[in-house]
Amino acid sequence: MRIKAWIGVAALSAAGVMVAVPAAAQFKKPDDAIKYRQAAFTVMGTHFARIGAVVKGAAPYDAKQVAHDAAVVETMSTLPFAAFGEGTDMGLKTRAKAEIWSDPAAFKAAAEKMQKAVVKLAEVAKSGDEAALKPAFGEVGKACKGCHDKFRAEE
Amino acid sequence: MRIKAWIGVAALSAAGVMVAVPAAAQFKKPDDAIKYRQAAFTVMGTHFARIGAVVKGAAPYDAKQVAHDAAVVETMSTLPFAAFGEGTDMGLKTRAKAEIWSDPAAFKAAAEKMQKAVVKLAEVAKSGDEAALKPAFGEVGKACKGCHDKFRAEE
Repeated sequence: MRIKAWIGVAALSAAGVMVAVPAAAQFKKPDDAIKYRQAAFTVMGTHFARIGAVVKGAAPYDAKQVAHDAAVVETMSTLPFAAFGEGTDMGLKTRAKAEIWSDPAAFKAAAEKMQKAVVKLAEVAKSGDEAALKPAFGEVGKACKGCHDKFRAEE
Repeated sequence: MRIKAWIGVAALSAAGVMVAVPAAAQFKKPDDAIKYRQAAFTVMGTHFARIGAVVKGAAPYDAKQVAHDAAVVETMSTLPFAAFGEGTDMGLKTRAKAEIWSDPAAFKAAAEKMQKAVVKLAEVAKSGDEAALKPAFGEVGKACKGCHDKFRAEE
C-alpha cells in the first residue's frame, strides 16, 4: 500500500519540474508529509506576502529584500508537491481536497503554472526592475488562487 | 511595545549572518512569527534528516539528491532567527525557552555556529565528496543539538 502510494507520487512528478528528487523514501509517515508540505507553504506564503506588501505600497521597495523574498519563494515552490502522495489526504488537519488525488494531471498543471510564474517573479525581482514587479507578482497570485480554488478547502 | 520588540530583533541580528533582511515589519502578529519559524525548522529538519539517512547507510548516496537537500537546509538555516522577536515567547505552542530572550548573545552564537556548519555541509554536498559528507553532517548535527539543549524545551 505504501509502495503503491509512492509509485503514485513518482508517476505524478515524472515529467514535470514539480519534484526535483526521487519520490520514494521521502516521508516515514503520511503525517510527516502533511506537516512538511504545510510548512513549505507557510514559508512560501510569508515571503510572497512580503513582496505583496511592496507591490501594494504598504512597504518600501528594497531591491535586495525583494530579491531575497522571491528567491525563498522560488526555492519553496518546488518542495511541497512531493508530499501529496496517496494516503496523505487525511491524518493531520489538512485543507487538501480529494481532487488532488482524483485529478492529478490538473493538480500537476496548476502547480507547474505557479512554479513557472514564480521563476519569472524571481527573475524580475533579481533584475531590480521595480515596474515589472507588480505584474509578475500578480501572475503568481493568480496561479496560487487558481490552485487553491480547486484543490484547497476553506478553513 | 511592538516597536521595542522589533528593535530588539534588529539589535540581535545587526552584526551577524542570522538575518538577511530588515527585522521590522516582518510579522503582523507574534503567532505568525512562531508559525513561520517552526515551519522553517520543519523544512530544514526534513531535508537534514534525508542527508542523515544517507550518512547512516539507510539510503543510497546520490550526489545530486544530497546537494539538493543540503541547499534547502542552507536556505532554511538563515530564515527562522528573524522570527524570535520579543513577544514571540508565547502564543502558539512553542518549545522556545526563555533563555533565547534572556541570553540573546548565546542564542545568536549558537545559531551562527549552526549556519557556518551548514554552509560547509552544502559545499561538501555540492562537491560530490562522499567521504567528507559524514563529518560535515556530524558538525551540523552537533550544532543543532547544542542549540536545542540550551534553547529548546522538551516536547
